[in-house]
Amino acid sequence: MPLPPEFHEIAKRVNNWGRWGEADEIGTLNLITDDVVRDAAATVRTGRRVPLALPLQQDGVQTGIVPGRVNPLHTMTQINYEMFGPGTVAISDDAVTMGLQAATHWDALTHVSHSGVIYNGRPADTVTAHAGARFSGIDKAPYIVSRGVLLDVARAKGLDRLPADHAVSPEDLDEAAEFGRVTVAPGDIVLVRTGQVQVFLAGDRQGYGFPSPGLSVHTPEWFHAHGVAAVANDTLTFEIIPPEIEGLWLPVHALHLVEMGMIQGQNWNLEKLSTACAQEKRHAFLLSAMPEPFIGGTGTPVAPVAVF
Amino acid sequence: MPLPPEFHEIAKRVNNWGRWGEADEIGTLNLITDDVVRDAAATVRTGRRVPLALPLQQDGVQTGIVPGRVNPLHTMTQINYEMFGPGTVAISDDAVTMGLQAATHWDALTHVSHSGVIYNGRPADTVTAHAGARFSGIDKAPYIVSRGVLLDVARAKGLDRLPADHAVSPEDLDEAAEFGRVTVAPGDIVLVRTGQVQVFLAGDRQGYGFPSPGLSVHTPEWFHAHGVAAVANDTLTFEIIPPEIEGLWLPVHALHLVEMGMIQGQNWNLEKLSTACAQEKRHAFLLSAMPEPFIGGTGTPVAPVAVF
Amino acid sequence: MPLPPEFHEIAKRVNNWGRWGEADEIGTLNLITDDVVRDAAATVRTGRRVPLALPLQQDGVQTGIVPGRVNPLHTMTQINYEMFGPGTVAISDDAVTMGLQAATHWDALTHVSHSGVIYNGRPADTVTAHAGARFSGIDKAPYIVSRGVLLDVARAKGLDRLPADHAVSPEDLDEAAEFGRVTVAPGDIVLVRTGQVQVFLAGDRQGYGFPSPGLSVHTPEWFHAHGVAAVANDTLTFEIIPPEIEGLWLPVHALHLVEMGMIQGQNWNLEKLSTACAQEKRHAFLLSAMPEPFIGGTGTPVAPVAVF
Amino acid sequence: MPLPPEFHEIAKRVNNWGRWGEADEIGTLNLITDDVVRDAAATVRTGRRVPLALPLQQDGVQTGIVPGRVNPLHTMTQINYEMFGPGTVAISDDAVTMGLQAATHWDALTHVSHSGVIYNGRPADTVTAHAGARFSGIDKAPYIVSRGVLLDVARAKGLDRLPADHAVSPEDLDEAAEFGRVTVAPGDIVLVRTGQVQVFLAGDRQGYGFPSPGLSVHTPEWFHAHGVAAVANDTLTFEIIPPEIEGLWLPVHALHLVEMGMIQGQNWNLEKLSTACAQEKRHAFLLSAMPEPFIGGTGTPVAPVAVF
Repeated sequence: MPLPPEFHEIAKRVNNWGRWGEADEIGTLNLITDDVVRDAAATVRTGRRVPLALPLQQDGVQTGIVPGRVNPLHTMTQINYEMFGPGTVAISDDAVTMGLQAATHWDALTHVSHSGVIYNGRPADTVTAHAGARFSGIDKAPYIVSRGVLLDVARAKGLDRLPADHAVSPEDLDEAAEFGRVTVAPGDIVLVRTGQVQVFLAGDRQGYGFPSPGLSVHTPEWFHAHGVAAVANDTLTFEIIPPEIEGLWLPVHALHLVEMGMIQGQNWNLEKLSTACAQEKRHAFLLSAMPEPFIGGTGTPVAPVAVF
Repeated sequence: MPLPPEFHEIAKRVNNWGRWGEADEIGTLNLITDDVVRDAAATVRTGRRVPLALPLQQDGVQTGIVPGRVNPLHTMTQINYEMFGPGTVAISDDAVTMGLQAATHWDALTHVSHSGVIYNGRPADTVTAHAGARFSGIDKAPYIVSRGVLLDVARAKGLDRLPADHAVSPEDLDEAAEFGRVTVAPGDIVLVRTGQVQVFLAGDRQGYGFPSPGLSVHTPEWFHAHGVAAVANDTLTFEIIPPEIEGLWLPVHALHLVEMGMIQGQNWNLEKLSTACAQEKRHAFLLSAMPEPFIGGTGTPVAPVAVF
Repeated sequence: MPLPPEFHEIAKRVNNWGRWGEADEIGTLNLITDDVVRDAAATVRTGRRVPLALPLQQDGVQTGIVPGRVNPLHTMTQINYEMFGPGTVAISDDAVTMGLQAATHWDALTHVSHSGVIYNGRPADTVTAHAGARFSGIDKAPYIVSRGVLLDVARAKGLDRLPADHAVSPEDLDEAAEFGRVTVAPGDIVLVRTGQVQVFLAGDRQGYGFPSPGLSVHTPEWFHAHGVAAVANDTLTFEIIPPEIEGLWLPVHALHLVEMGMIQGQNWNLEKLSTACAQEKRHAFLLSAMPEPFIGGTGTPVAPVAVF
Repeated sequence: MPLPPEFHEIAKRVNNWGRWGEADEIGTLNLITDDVVRDAAATVRTGRRVPLALPLQQDGVQTGIVPGRVNPLHTMTQINYEMFGPGTVAISDDAVTMGLQAATHWDALTHVSHSGVIYNGRPADTVTAHAGARFSGIDKAPYIVSRGVLLDVARAKGLDRLPADHAVSPEDLDEAAEFGRVTVAPGDIVLVRTGQVQVFLAGDRQGYGFPSPGLSVHTPEWFHAHGVAAVANDTLTFEIIPPEIEGLWLPVHALHLVEMGMIQGQNWNLEKLSTACAQEKRHAFLLSAMPEPFIGGTGTPVAPVAVF
């Protein structure tokens, strides 16, 4: 079953292949220029910091829906071990096994493919077991610092959180921008708040993931038009699930990652950020969201921080 | 063999227990106030970003010296997997097993203990196999953004890198600060460059770790006097190894983590930062170095970025 | 809350500390003498083999009840990788992360402690994070081959499987031995079938683990009296759960592992064995159930096989 | 560079595709019939057991030569944890991350491919990241119990161990069989001793792996002619390395696994077995070497035991 015509029509409109050259591996991150970063730093007025990562723990957001995407298993390899003899300084060390997309994370551009290709038209089979992603791995995106903009869709609608069947539309994004009195500009990292992460925070791990509100298949064009560098939200699936068009699973993933070359983030905890934006009366801030540079990684845990 | 009197004398002079209350779990990170962060952001002039993390890879800096501290094993759990049927959007996912202190990392305050205690006088046995660090785990330090200062000890001396037997002294730190025309102030995160990471970058994994230049047992007092919030450098062991005082292993770890409650970072790649500071003609910048919030973690990988 | 008097009374009756010397680390495995093994081999008449391990897979019996006991995460580290150049022999390699007690397994004697001690009266704190079990680790039990005896409690009662609240009693064991026309003898490995594993095989992972039939606190005396070398069954918890005596959790574990020094196995699939015994008209066979020799391991996956 | 004609000539002579039907996934394990097992059990006379696995430990035989094939990282997930409250029975649990081929192991038939195919002519791309080996995974070989025969090539030559450049030839196998006064018969599992594992046992991990004696490209025909069911030895690479024919890497792997459909084992410790055979004056015994049933596994750790 090939992808339907609707998909390909949108794909044509948002496609960025070749835009930054044939050798490009980072897509819309090219939009984060030094000037953008300088201006983002200039938005800082109080120094207030808001971290956006969920805790990394065995009891995390994964429930087995995605095979192999395991919650972090954190183990101590040494506990107060007097390695150099009795009475000496003692060491505690630890290790972890986890899915790179298990908790708060960035998808690398290689996280999905369609029709046998990844971003910039490269063959999908350049992702291999022994080397991971040869092109556009997360290690190729070594710094992600820019202006962050919260589009608080739930709060703009006066809701704690969106209903599970709500597909966030371009109109919702406009409404939230207006609510936040902010204009999305080239190089911005947009954070879209649905409030869905509250379901997880309240202890319902199954309910958090499915069904879930999320981005509509029509939003990539909005992000494309605004020159957005990256998008993250507070859901497991990023886009609405089950999908809007029957049988068309993960179209937003394919449009963002493959067609636009725009990385995206999931499971970001935007609750405290929502409060902070309301209190600070602005929805733009300096955002640092550095990928861990896994060679060939198709994703990465990230511990983002907003600075006001 | 108890720790020698010299250790306890220094310990008394730098001890911060109770300084931020009995309940405190983050020590000198308290020195990073909103004002410090605001001023740090104000140092940004060009938007130039320099990432400081080594790549995460199986062929990393660990060589088996520290048992259980394994280099990252990155594996693909799915490769272009058409989970929803033939022709649908295909998914690539990955997982990792790694020591939390394996590559570029922060030590949590609980990474070492001595005499049965950790920071703020708590019993060391509050670190357990099932829960990790109950107090002062890395999850308690949710945001680390501040002014970063590079003390380029190697370059200040006109050297590519310090000799393996060079213990970085307080005088070296003063010299490097003067060289960089920078004054270390309360809340700063100090990065001390020895150049030792070049050994690893040149392919000599064994030679990188041992023997190695590193901080002298006399530097904690310097950091204490200047109100430093955290320190990182470009070596495996952080402090000089083998140690200055025979039989006194890891005294700097014990002074920083246990006595001062100051986290420290290792295996930071400061080579490009050294070049950038020379080019930008300043050695202070905005530094974001967010811990991944592992619940109970005694360390964390970190992907720091300096913004000029 | 200390363990109740009932526990200590039974403990006194089954205690084997010192029975095989103060240095002993393997307990009742001492009962498997060469003669026992020779006689066990002599029971083989047809060469029919029945494997008893559940498949090792991500979708295994663990559901998160025991923190850190993760189902196997099997990943490919290489897939048809032409390591030596195009057209050469290609390699596929894999790795796993799993709890040692995750699936079909043996508990080592150190898997539990009570009152601060492990088998043979050693201090429990000889189990450490950096070295695992210094004494009585699973590596100390390098071969487990003996006569296996199936006590098919469910079939003896004419049931597919025992009800969830059924504590297998000594009388049940006698009944099953009579049903199988078998006499349990010193050095035997006894397999107790409840039929509970059918719940897992039918897809109900939650229902399999809790509540569950299992061994009664009164069975250790029966095993002790018969000179049994090891016991395994087809449940997650081994003993009845919730327990018979309120607040006394895992008494059978403590009696077997700590007091008797008798290892025990869980999650063994005894369904095909039940059929085979019925068809072969005998309930004794050669059993090979070799531990994987994890140094310091407190458990091990095992792939047992019965040979008729 | 395609495989040379010599390879294809031998391949033609030993090929077993279709021999046990098109649906077959286990190859020469079909030769282990119930009768073979019955007769193998009948060889047991004393009940003496000899385990053949190397310890599973971080300091194992892997040195990084094969990327991703990591030594076991054994960690405690709980240590004497009083899960049910103070004074209750306390639990110690552990987990492991390891390459399935890291220590003493079996290669599954899918461990290598050549020319795009695996055993029985199936396409090699049936091995995938999300499912592992769809055909001929190690889970398809659920029981491996048979007569074991030690061909003690080193001892037959009066050597402690073979020189590193010694390719074990068919004549060597004949010589060792004669030395052991044993005739290899259909269904046997042959263990070929070179003595090379002594290098590892003496602490030289690098020297153990490379260079190494091992099987010659001419031995598969010998195994084929004798109806051998499986072969294992005491080296890292199984076959001589560097290889006999320049540029032809791993020909024995390809002949055994792909052409013959015969699994093979590496890193078996045959030292104590050699002594036992000499003492017992026979080189045939009952061998149990059960794979751990990893679904889709291309290898498995194994803890073999010989019973005399």
